[in-house]
Amino acid sequence: MTTQETFDEPLNLMDFERLAPEKLTQMAWDYYAGAADDLVTLRDNRLAFNKIRLRPRMMVDVSQRDLSTSVLGQSMPMPLLFAPTAFHRMAHPDGEIATVRAAGSRGLTMILSSLSTTPLEDVAQAAAQAATAPLWFQLYVYKDRGLTESVVRRAEAAGYKALVLTVDAPYFGRREADIRNRFFLPDGLEVANLRGTGKEDIDRPKGGSGLNAYVASLLDASLTWKDVNWLCTLTDMPVIVKGILRGDDAVRALEHGAKGVIVSNHGGRQLDTSPATIDVLPEITEAVGGKLDVVLDGGVRRGTDILKAVALGAKAVAIGRPILWGLAYNGEAGVQRVVDLLREEFSLGMALAGCASVRDITPDLIFQPRL
Amino acid sequence: MTTQETFDEPLNLMDFERLAPEKLTQMAWDYYAGAADDLVTLRDNRLAFNKIRLRPRMMVDVSQRDLSTSVLGQSMPMPLLFAPTAFHRMAHPDGEIATVRAAGSRGLTMILSSLSTTPLEDVAQAAAQAATAPLWFQLYVYKDRGLTESVVRRAEAAGYKALVLTVDAPYFGRREADIRNRFFLPDGLEVANLRGTGKEDIDRPKGGSGLNAYVASLLDASLTWKDVNWLCTLTDMPVIVKGILRGDDAVRALEHGAKGVIVSNHGGRQLDTSPATIDVLPEITEAVGGKLDVVLDGGVRRGTDILKAVALGAKAVAIGRPILWGLAYNGEAGVQRVVDLLREEFSLGMALAGCASVRDITPDLIFQPRL
Amino acid sequence: MTTQETFDEPLNLMDFERLAPEKLTQMAWDYYAGAADDLVTLRDNRLAFNKIRLRPRMMVDVSQRDLSTSVLGQSMPMPLLFAPTAFHRMAHPDGEIATVRAAGSRGLTMILSSLSTTPLEDVAQAAAQAATAPLWFQLYVYKDRGLTESVVRRAEAAGYKALVLTVDAPYFGRREADIRNRFFLPDGLEVANLRGTGKEDIDRPKGGSGLNAYVASLLDASLTWKDVNWLCTLTDMPVIVKGILRGDDAVRALEHGAKGVIVSNHGGRQLDTSPATIDVLPEITEAVGGKLDVVLDGGVRRGTDILKAVALGAKAVAIGRPILWGLAYNGEAGVQRVVDLLREEFSLGMALAGCASVRDITPDLIFQPRL
Amino acid sequence: MTTQETFDEPLNLMDFERLAPEKLTQMAWDYYAGAADDLVTLRDNRLAFNKIRLRPRMMVDVSQRDLSTSVLGQSMPMPLLFAPTAFHRMAHPDGEIATVRAAGSRGLTMILSSLSTTPLEDVAQAAAQAATAPLWFQLYVYKDRGLTESVVRRAEAAGYKALVLTVDAPYFGRREADIRNRFFLPDGLEVANLRGTGKEDIDRPKGGSGLNAYVASLLDASLTWKDVNWLCTLTDMPVIVKGILRGDDAVRALEHGAKGVIVSNHGGRQLDTSPATIDVLPEITEAVGGKLDVVLDGGVRRGTDILKAVALGAKAVAIGRPILWGLAYNGEAGVQRVVDLLREEFSLGMALAGCASVRDITPDLIFQPRL
Repeated sequence: MTTQETFDEPLNLMDFERLAPEKLTQMAWDYYAGAADDLVTLRDNRLAFNKIRLRPRMMVDVSQRDLSTSVLGQSMPMPLLFAPTAFHRMAHPDGEIATVRAAGSRGLTMILSSLSTTPLEDVAQAAAQAATAPLWFQLYVYKDRGLTESVVRRAEAAGYKALVLTVDAPYFGRREADIRNRFFLPDGLEVANLRGTGKEDIDRPKGGSGLNAYVASLLDASLTWKDVNWLCTLTDMPVIVKGILRGDDAVRALEHGAKGVIVSNHGGRQLDTSPATIDVLPEITEAVGGKLDVVLDGGVRRGTDILKAVALGAKAVAIGRPILWGLAYNGEAGVQRVVDLLREEFSLGMALAGCASVRDITPDLIFQPRL
Repeated sequence: MTTQETFDEPLNLMDFERLAPEKLTQMAWDYYAGAADDLVTLRDNRLAFNKIRLRPRMMVDVSQRDLSTSVLGQSMPMPLLFAPTAFHRMAHPDGEIATVRAAGSRGLTMILSSLSTTPLEDVAQAAAQAATAPLWFQLYVYKDRGLTESVVRRAEAAGYKALVLTVDAPYFGRREADIRNRFFLPDGLEVANLRGTGKEDIDRPKGGSGLNAYVASLLDASLTWKDVNWLCTLTDMPVIVKGILRGDDAVRALEHGAKGVIVSNHGGRQLDTSPATIDVLPEITEAVGGKLDVVLDGGVRRGTDILKAVALGAKAVAIGRPILWGLAYNGEAGVQRVVDLLREEFSLGMALAGCASVRDITPDLIFQPRL
Repeated sequence: MTTQETFDEPLNLMDFERLAPEKLTQMAWDYYAGAADDLVTLRDNRLAFNKIRLRPRMMVDVSQRDLSTSVLGQSMPMPLLFAPTAFHRMAHPDGEIATVRAAGSRGLTMILSSLSTTPLEDVAQAAAQAATAPLWFQLYVYKDRGLTESVVRRAEAAGYKALVLTVDAPYFGRREADIRNRFFLPDGLEVANLRGTGKEDIDRPKGGSGLNAYVASLLDASLTWKDVNWLCTLTDMPVIVKGILRGDDAVRALEHGAKGVIVSNHGGRQLDTSPATIDVLPEITEAVGGKLDVVLDGGVRRGTDILKAVALGAKAVAIGRPILWGLAYNGEAGVQRVVDLLREEFSLGMALAGCASVRDITPDLIFQPRL
Repeated sequence: MTTQETFDEPLNLMDFERLAPEKLTQMAWDYYAGAADDLVTLRDNRLAFNKIRLRPRMMVDVSQRDLSTSVLGQSMPMPLLFAPTAFHRMAHPDGEIATVRAAGSRGLTMILSSLSTTPLEDVAQAAAQAATAPLWFQLYVYKDRGLTESVVRRAEAAGYKALVLTVDAPYFGRREADIRNRFFLPDGLEVANLRGTGKEDIDRPKGGSGLNAYVASLLDASLTWKDVNWLCTLTDMPVIVKGILRGDDAVRALEHGAKGVIVSNHGGRQLDTSPATIDVLPEITEAVGGKLDVVLDGGVRRGTDILKAVALGAKAVAIGRPILWGLAYNGEAGVQRVVDLLREEFSLGMALAGCASVRDITPDLIFQPRL
């Protein structure tokens, strides 16, 4: 069989990951692919999904599947969001504009990172042109609360529909590849949302990661749950707390005004040897008892992973790195392809598991091995 | 020791698998050996058997072993069937004729696939010449119920003794090797049972797997358990439901008229990360409580695997890919050798486990590790 | 550091195994090192020991250790026997004579295999010259009971002190390396205990293993527990049943007159995927409740393995292959070195675990992980 | 990216280990890195930490972290000690002087080994010049109790603040690399604390390890718990018992006058297949119920390992080999770097886990997987 007879496009999200190093500088690849310390949690996120077995139901009419769902009352064409990831212009010149257009073209919600290389207003404008899928904005609380408030006001004004507060990053984790590379934001790239504040550059340090130094100088490590209340008073946007790994913390989020939580270990980039997100999901959905919506990120690479997360109580999942691999591969079209493959897998997975709608994805789909 | 002094024939079913790529086109090998997504379930089928430990009984008179059993009242020389597999002429020019002759010569029942490259009538005729071992027919329910009914009538007329309804394939799983290869049925091969209907060809697509497109256009993804009742009214052949992985579904099969179930994950080719069949067998045999016969396929490669499945409640096992490896290796004689090796292993395994008959293969043979 | 400055002798039993292939023909190495089917049980014997953790006691006076024990009332300098293994002259020209001299020089009991390449009388004579350590004789019951009886009588006459009846071999397991090699007993070697009966040769077959064919023609696969009673009436030697892997079978051995059992899976050479012997030992010692002595073989390679087996209720362990590696390495002196290393390790292990005598090796030494 | 643009210093303790062989003779590397028998326990120490998952708490004010703790009433800047390790001048010419200066410069307590290559008085003097961090002295009880007593008196006179009695070494474990190397103390190095007693040299033996022979001749293998009482009467220094792996032994230590225990398997160098220290820690802290202080060594390589040990009840941890790797790398500065990296990781780990002080490192940080 000669090469031209085969189909050589990436067929799944892992293919995109394998192709990404060709498209990226070493520093960018290391930044995106890397994680904290020994990468234990990074790998565990994947392994934990792979260990779960699905119990498919047979002889259900699955000729029509309804993949749609809703999170925080917002309807979505499938239970998938774009997790916030930083510096898209490091992956592709079109950066966040390409990403949001791809999301919009599929009706999906992108959570824009505070650390975007495109101003939030420009992203919102591009989104409005592409489609009506709402945008959410990921927020870090800065030591300078005035600056924080101004960013929130700008997001609100630009039409963002929810505020995703990252709570697992009083500091950034120790990502050794970034330290080795003395990570900095390349010439021409900036933290665009802070343009003109004197805080838009991430310079190359003599040692260590420039990003970690940047974050340590900017972010407030003294946050407590009362700050969630403060944030809720600041805006009409619903607040979603991202970075929860314990049931008691999810309950605290609820008590302090959050409307949702994202179960996340920050892609293994914060505390290494944190549990895989799918492993703690049951504890969290049980603790909140449906009183707030639960989204999960971390290791989602296959349609069956979405089935597993939803079966264990998540309203939706979010993907981070795969969006970047698609973006690096081919800009907007690359991201669309990533999303289309995952949607195709999820739709087929629902059919093969006997689920005609997302409501049919119930806990009994999860196999509990006998001891 | 020089080469000619050693015995170089394949000694077990894994040897046949190792030799198969030499005998097959890349596309055929990939089709037979492949499975869905990441091959998790494919590998798990084998691993799960390998993790089970057998507790042999000593000092039982095993000088004579009776390997025979019965399934659906049909006596069999050993608890082994040929699982339905597609396109045997892609493995060997003699195709299903060679396979059925090998089965018949050993008194074993072949389940002919709907997707055979030889018409069911020709296979039945060859079988009748070879021996009296009954044939079973594997059925897909087509969107066109008239076509479905005509195939059932033809199978009945040709003397098939049971109808094996595949229920795990509203669509075909995503087998990436087939997508990469743009799988099609080579010139000269056809879906012989549909000859003359305009649905006998599987063409090469521009992208994707031609088989998946073919199946999506032909099969009915809206089947429900009522269709089993309908099928039972259509024929006097007992109906066996293939593709069950849950106890509740096995009970539903019983309630809707089935006489047996085949515990199967379609060789890992449908929903990836489905459980290994041997891991769900106990749940299923417990649920049906002997009210219908349970057959298992998936990962059976050693005589001890048959012991394990029978000890956990299966009436028999079925093997799929090993038949194809034997067929590719040497046509009818190759399939006979595969079967003879497995029979030899099973017979010896019974002796070494202290079982003089299949009835002696009881649950206490399975070792339960202490915690 | 130059080579001559280091100590290059084998330092442990695994070293002897690594060196053995240099000393043996391929056929002999394959025969000794091989096992049934996929070698699952062979490997599991070792892995199971390696998974067990020992809980050492501190601050016990271990300046003097008493390694001695007794089995069947026979005192032994340490809880170690030589398991019966076949064809020692295939490993070294001195064969069983070298082995028994090494055993005797250390006060250890050798269990002579029925399949020795030296007549049992010659072995007994050599043993008597070397030391006073009693010999035991391993017996297969032949189809020809007269022949069986004559062998028992000869063993008794030659001074053997116990009869070890192998019960796990109605047939021999399928050892694929032997089949590939078309195993036979090389010229000049014979089953010496059957010299002159016409059953002393093991010829090379056209296919398969000559040993398996030999065994199938000679051994009685119809044995039942009543044959243990028969054997007990035949001789005053105590009968020990070798090849037990279940508690109920150990109780049956007791009920039919045996004085001891050897927990053994025949070194993984009979039913593959049988449990590791150390994994079933607790069930067996619990079932017999001290009413008969339990010996274990299978995977013992380190002094700590002996500690583990004794802590879990064994009176002693037996080693098979390591004796052959020592024999191949350097005849009698090689076997002595194997035994001396193991004794040194066991003695040190006792000291480090806080055991001044074998009685101190109690079940609390075994770590039970919390769940 | 060119090499000079990256940061090439060791970034974690494993980096120091990887670099160490370049700085050491083969014999020294083998001695430091080696362990008993098959290195099962050595590896298990690390693996066991890596299997534990931490449940971080979010939204705790961690802008200021208090890393300090106290052990035996002695305050420490972080829960870290230097475990006693032998022969520092084999790693670096400055030997124990460099080590103690590094410890002192960070306010950390070094436990000086009896087998130091620098006299305890010289180490104490160097410590006094560097800082006020107290020193502890590790003691072996010699067969010659007068010699033992004189060493204790000297330690007391030199200002050591605690006596760490090693109880897991009636003999030294079988470290095969040392046997292979015929380990000896190189010219110019001596067991400095025994200078002038005729017991200061460790000569190269004809076979085996010179160290093991040395230890066997010198140490008392008849110690019992009463000797702890004796030691307590001998000195006002608190006695800490090192080498405990069982709850009952920890209780015995308490009953015989010890003020603390160090949970240790001697870095895997004594009884191989002993449990990982972190795996037995819960049993031990539960058994002593806070009545004495528990320190743990064995496999601590990451800041998160300290979190895990403290969460499971340890007051502090000790590190051994990493100190030697730092010493070999760059003397005092190398050791400082090792400590600084670990402190940085621990501090960050506390922040990311939501712990503002060591008191906040509670058992609920440990993830218990559901079954």
